[in-house]
Amino acid sequence: MKQLNVGLIGGGFMGKAHSLAYAAMPMFFWPAPAIPVRHTIAEASDELAAEAALRFGFQRSTSDWRSVVEDPAIDVVDIATPNHLHAEIAIAAAQAGKHIISEKPLARTGAEAKEMYDAVVAAGVVNMVAFNYRRTPAVALAKKFIDEGAIGRILSFRGTYLQDWSASPDSPLSWRFQKAIAGSGALGDIATHVIDIARYLVGEFDSVNAMMSTWIPERPLQSSGADALGTVRGGDGPRGAVDVDDQVMTMIRFAGGAIGSIEATRNGYGRNNFITFEVHGTEGSIVFNYERRDELQVCFASDGDDRRGFRTIYTGPAHPYGKDLWPIPALGIGYGETKIIEAHDFFTAIAEGTSVSPNFGDGYQTALIDDAIVESAETDAWVDVPGID
Amino acid sequence: MKQLNVGLIGGGFMGKAHSLAYAAMPMFFWPAPAIPVRHTIAEASDELAAEAALRFGFQRSTSDWRSVVEDPAIDVVDIATPNHLHAEIAIAAAQAGKHIISEKPLARTGAEAKEMYDAVVAAGVVNMVAFNYRRTPAVALAKKFIDEGAIGRILSFRGTYLQDWSASPDSPLSWRFQKAIAGSGALGDIATHVIDIARYLVGEFDSVNAMMSTWIPERPLQSSGADALGTVRGGDGPRGAVDVDDQVMTMIRFAGGAIGSIEATRNGYGRNNFITFEVHGTEGSIVFNYERRDELQVCFASDGDDRRGFRTIYTGPAHPYGKDLWPIPALGIGYGETKIIEAHDFFTAIAEGTSVSPNFGDGYQTALIDDAIVESAETDAWVDVPGID
Amino acid sequence: MKQLNVGLIGGGFMGKAHSLAYAAMPMFFWPAPAIPVRHTIAEASDELAAEAALRFGFQRSTSDWRSVVEDPAIDVVDIATPNHLHAEIAIAAAQAGKHIISEKPLARTGAEAKEMYDAVVAAGVVNMVAFNYRRTPAVALAKKFIDEGAIGRILSFRGTYLQDWSASPDSPLSWRFQKAIAGSGALGDIATHVIDIARYLVGEFDSVNAMMSTWIPERPLQSSGADALGTVRGGDGPRGAVDVDDQVMTMIRFAGGAIGSIEATRNGYGRNNFITFEVHGTEGSIVFNYERRDELQVCFASDGDDRRGFRTIYTGPAHPYGKDLWPIPALGIGYGETKIIEAHDFFTAIAEGTSVSPNFGDGYQTALIDDAIVESAETDAWVDVPGID
Amino acid sequence: MKQLNVGLIGGGFMGKAHSLAYAAMPMFFWPAPAIPVRHTIAEASDELAAEAALRFGFQRSTSDWRSVVEDPAIDVVDIATPNHLHAEIAIAAAQAGKHIISEKPLARTGAEAKEMYDAVVAAGVVNMVAFNYRRTPAVALAKKFIDEGAIGRILSFRGTYLQDWSASPDSPLSWRFQKAIAGSGALGDIATHVIDIARYLVGEFDSVNAMMSTWIPERPLQSSGADALGTVRGGDGPRGAVDVDDQVMTMIRFAGGAIGSIEATRNGYGRNNFITFEVHGTEGSIVFNYERRDELQVCFASDGDDRRGFRTIYTGPAHPYGKDLWPIPALGIGYGETKIIEAHDFFTAIAEGTSVSPNFGDGYQTALIDDAIVESAETDAWVDVPGID
Repeated sequence: MKQLNVGLIGGGFMGKAHSLAYAAMPMFFWPAPAIPVRHTIAEASDELAAEAALRFGFQRSTSDWRSVVEDPAIDVVDIATPNHLHAEIAIAAAQAGKHIISEKPLARTGAEAKEMYDAVVAAGVVNMVAFNYRRTPAVALAKKFIDEGAIGRILSFRGTYLQDWSASPDSPLSWRFQKAIAGSGALGDIATHVIDIARYLVGEFDSVNAMMSTWIPERPLQSSGADALGTVRGGDGPRGAVDVDDQVMTMIRFAGGAIGSIEATRNGYGRNNFITFEVHGTEGSIVFNYERRDELQVCFASDGDDRRGFRTIYTGPAHPYGKDLWPIPALGIGYGETKIIEAHDFFTAIAEGTSVSPNFGDGYQTALIDDAIVESAETDAWVDVPGID
Repeated sequence: MKQLNVGLIGGGFMGKAHSLAYAAMPMFFWPAPAIPVRHTIAEASDELAAEAALRFGFQRSTSDWRSVVEDPAIDVVDIATPNHLHAEIAIAAAQAGKHIISEKPLARTGAEAKEMYDAVVAAGVVNMVAFNYRRTPAVALAKKFIDEGAIGRILSFRGTYLQDWSASPDSPLSWRFQKAIAGSGALGDIATHVIDIARYLVGEFDSVNAMMSTWIPERPLQSSGADALGTVRGGDGPRGAVDVDDQVMTMIRFAGGAIGSIEATRNGYGRNNFITFEVHGTEGSIVFNYERRDELQVCFASDGDDRRGFRTIYTGPAHPYGKDLWPIPALGIGYGETKIIEAHDFFTAIAEGTSVSPNFGDGYQTALIDDAIVESAETDAWVDVPGID
Repeated sequence: MKQLNVGLIGGGFMGKAHSLAYAAMPMFFWPAPAIPVRHTIAEASDELAAEAALRFGFQRSTSDWRSVVEDPAIDVVDIATPNHLHAEIAIAAAQAGKHIISEKPLARTGAEAKEMYDAVVAAGVVNMVAFNYRRTPAVALAKKFIDEGAIGRILSFRGTYLQDWSASPDSPLSWRFQKAIAGSGALGDIATHVIDIARYLVGEFDSVNAMMSTWIPERPLQSSGADALGTVRGGDGPRGAVDVDDQVMTMIRFAGGAIGSIEATRNGYGRNNFITFEVHGTEGSIVFNYERRDELQVCFASDGDDRRGFRTIYTGPAHPYGKDLWPIPALGIGYGETKIIEAHDFFTAIAEGTSVSPNFGDGYQTALIDDAIVESAETDAWVDVPGID
Repeated sequence: MKQLNVGLIGGGFMGKAHSLAYAAMPMFFWPAPAIPVRHTIAEASDELAAEAALRFGFQRSTSDWRSVVEDPAIDVVDIATPNHLHAEIAIAAAQAGKHIISEKPLARTGAEAKEMYDAVVAAGVVNMVAFNYRRTPAVALAKKFIDEGAIGRILSFRGTYLQDWSASPDSPLSWRFQKAIAGSGALGDIATHVIDIARYLVGEFDSVNAMMSTWIPERPLQSSGADALGTVRGGDGPRGAVDVDDQVMTMIRFAGGAIGSIEATRNGYGRNNFITFEVHGTEGSIVFNYERRDELQVCFASDGDDRRGFRTIYTGPAHPYGKDLWPIPALGIGYGETKIIEAHDFFTAIAEGTSVSPNFGDGYQTALIDDAIVESAETDAWVDVPGID
């Protein structure tokens, strides 16, 4: 069985999730498309990198991400850094002929994404952007039902991503609140996941209409000891300005005729990772809530009048990816499984020399949608979404 | 105890609901503010009216609504007709000095609503528009929490009203699909309820941005035997054109600084009377779903980190209107109770010589919001909402 | 249309519910089987009775229940008193040839129930015991599915009735905590509803095995101003002994081969009127929770592997009783509707000269089950349940 | 950081889950108590073992489990075999001085469990039985609340474990349906998890009263290619007898005065891994459903009357184990995380030279409860549960 050496850039929350995926993927998917070897991990300092290697099971460590990209032994570069580093690393990795998986959003802007997209297309490497939530088995099941026509022609899509980990004004000013690093706020960080799901399920966006709000204009400067997401509340120390959005609301016209809305906020007390969508079709409806991610709710118009209603389907062996996960439904899918499936599909594409979705083209298209949303919010007008070609 | 004679115009679904309310109100609210006497009911023919009187417990019946309005014995005129008759009846009743409760939406347009509003103001009669859902005890509890500051300053509001009773193209062309009678479709029929709740909980609208869609352009002509809502599916007979909206999506800027969205559709398979809202404030959140109307979900930011989460509160004697309803929570509130409470508050205003909300001013304001939504959908632009004064 | 004069004994919570049912039944069910006339109401004093007549819409009032039973103008006697009066009133009413509806439990013991049963059988009058919850449309839909074989042969039944209105030791010593009046505690007051549902859905009981607990041995003596259920908490005054059960747990063997459990408690904080059951059959399952009473959850084994799951069916016009209630599902059924349906079925039996379920035979059988449960709890052994014949 | 070599016996579903735990534990819990080294895996044949080693990341493989137990390089023996092998392996491993973790149930009978318990006590090795579900963070949070007195003195416990993977008569006769291998059916396989949780939350059992049923007396003989749980349905081939229970119902008296019930079935269509409990205390209630395992519902009696209700708490960094799992709640816990936490606590005990719960003493006590349940079902009587000492 083929082994592929992975160089992972970044040992934070995402580094952990990806390391888990590499270790666990063959345990779940067997025979595996290839066995990921945790070869080298890069972090900000030699010391951090060495610790990350021990913790995450990598053979080597470095504080120089360029050495990873340039290492001939490395087959795959995995970019798990803050957003502002994605482009530089990805372009270098593409030029070095590495297959690349990048965390989302692909880039801070459409223009930045385009450079990355052009680089991987030119290099001909397998590329993927880590919109992992579409790999939740229940979301993949929704896709299957839609593709089969089980709910007919899609009329409307209603999506949300609501969180509250930074709803307090005392939540620190992590990089996710800084435009220079993150590109945008709730839009890029969380709304993009729902945009990706909307594209996956409904298709391309024709135009968007949006509002963006920054509810907490200043946050405490983050101490060095803060955790990856900055969820540790700050104290009475100095504060810095937030220059990204806390909330975004949109209306959408899809190219295929459906309409929709996507809303995302970081100020929704009581919501944790509330990724939801409701899709209405001419023959039925589908509802999903990631906080109860083992479940998909589906209503078929064709069910008898006395027995029609949303079916709560617990995904398991009978559903997408299910036979390779756990042997019965509701043993339960966590965040890790979405990443394990993602790794499987990425390594399958490498092993088979095919492409995978969502790839850098999808990430670029999503970045163009983000740009249109920002423009709409600034101009108070509908804005057309250009295609990537 | 004072008795007040009611003249009810219309013996359909709403006539039934209002008759129930008049009979039951003193049973629940005791001492009652006044005892409603079911005096006269008007229907389209003498025969229908006589049958309605027997069924709904009225002393007299007539096929001439004007005779009700002009009857000196009548204290209260209740308008439970299709929308196009609201204005004429209400204005006549106001001129006759009757107290008036009208079904919603108040009128087909803002201009029509203004005439009605002017008439009741000029007459000095007590007036009410039957946006009954804000009288669901759980909704009134949400209002109480907001007024107490329990969730802080409101940041955003997300409301829906989703139904499926007419999702089939074979659902007949009842008056609710005809602009001349109804004024609008999902907007006036159902979205207005959520607009009313949004005004109740968040305050006035500054401006709106909207899309409207008609998914089913033709429906079977309705046979005379169809029920009030036209839920009996038609056959292969002739079809007529639908000239109102099946779905409306909006973005909202509230005068107080909050933002929001309201969406309504009649094509949401699996949704029946899915009136929902989620309100995020700086100190907590509130979530409601009328399909589970005994429950209000509230999250308080001030709860301890290890025990914070949405509380599912079953409304009962400890909550608004509760001590007069059923002795323990979850014995259960149905549609009837919203109307019983409505009748109570209306008769209280009459007995005490005060005003009540939502009144014709509220109905007029909602009609202006509806007008702005229609204009926005036609112009693809944000539209300011004028005040009623 | 035939009119039947009702004499109602008791103007408390149940008197209110029954009065509502009589007023509303023809509004919902039309043509009505007969029109209930609220003729006479009896209460403990002339003053209370007169007030109840005004409030509940009765023509006359009395403090002497015997005068109601003996009044030739009365067709129907409705017993809505505390339990210890049921037998005496019912037997007198039967002897006077009145049709009778009695609140539940029918009697304090099987022996007492037998006397009542014998009396109505001898008199040949229509008789009913008010186990209203089996008339929740969703419960009736469960019955329909079971009768159609939609979930196959029943294997097991799991039922609960959990409440918390008296979970506090400061909740007063109302009659419901006094054996001489109530007969038993949670068993007779609430568990019997689930026993009735179990008999309705699964069939007769073969034998039972039970535990009973009294968690709060003393409660404050009730002030005269307390409400019907005694939910107003007492103060520091004198306390009296509770001599009934707060909680009962059982295991059940059904005559048809299924097994089951029924549990009821008044000490379940957070539960209000938590009547639930889950029925497993060889071809599917049914789940119900009265706190969300518009919904029935059904899982059909025959659904495809990729789309099997509990369907959440909102009862409405397509379901039992639905076409006569509200025109679309989730407008919502409250406690009142269960009583309105009950009244309809009772008056239908009178009008048609048939019998109705649950009748005094059912109430007697349930009392025998109660006796067996008490005996099992006292003897720590399985106890056979005798049949009523 | 200390490294400990693990020898894993069994490469099926549980072998996968444990391998994942060993790889992932340090990624989550850092600094780790020790680093588990996947040293040797044993399977039924050399070929299967070699494949398992590649798949699960072990350095060596063998078809001889005794060689694992006897290997001086091995620190930890992990028993992930069918139940009938637990005792022999565990006793050998204890005698060889290995620390031991065994899958549940510990043994087929109390007598067998006693031998295992005696062996580990005599050897002085760290020992654990893998009742993983009590390590679900929400269950650990329930324990924390109970220990803090947040819901007062416990009155009652109601637990279920309902599944449907073998509800069809065509589900094959895997070892789980054979008494000689499994010991018992639903009792040992699934009810024991709830028994373990009940002991964890409420305390020791005083006595039990039970019923057991075998609904499907014959099942198709399993083909060699069937999966670990035998979820692949058989065909028309020969069938063999099931000699274990499909369903068990119990009533429980706890030593501390509370009462309870535990029910488990494999014939509950629509239930997948429906491990639930509801605990009522004098000051509140706790409800859990593993199918929605990120959530714990808690009702505090002390909350204000207008805001009391079950709080749906999504476990995360503020809850037990949470700071080491995922950075925000509802990213989501799957089955794997329960095993990762289990591995953490087991290795912590080894590293610190302490004991861990549930250990072989707990497993032995649970086996004694199982024995009492079986005896009760056979004798139709309450049976006292002996203590392990």
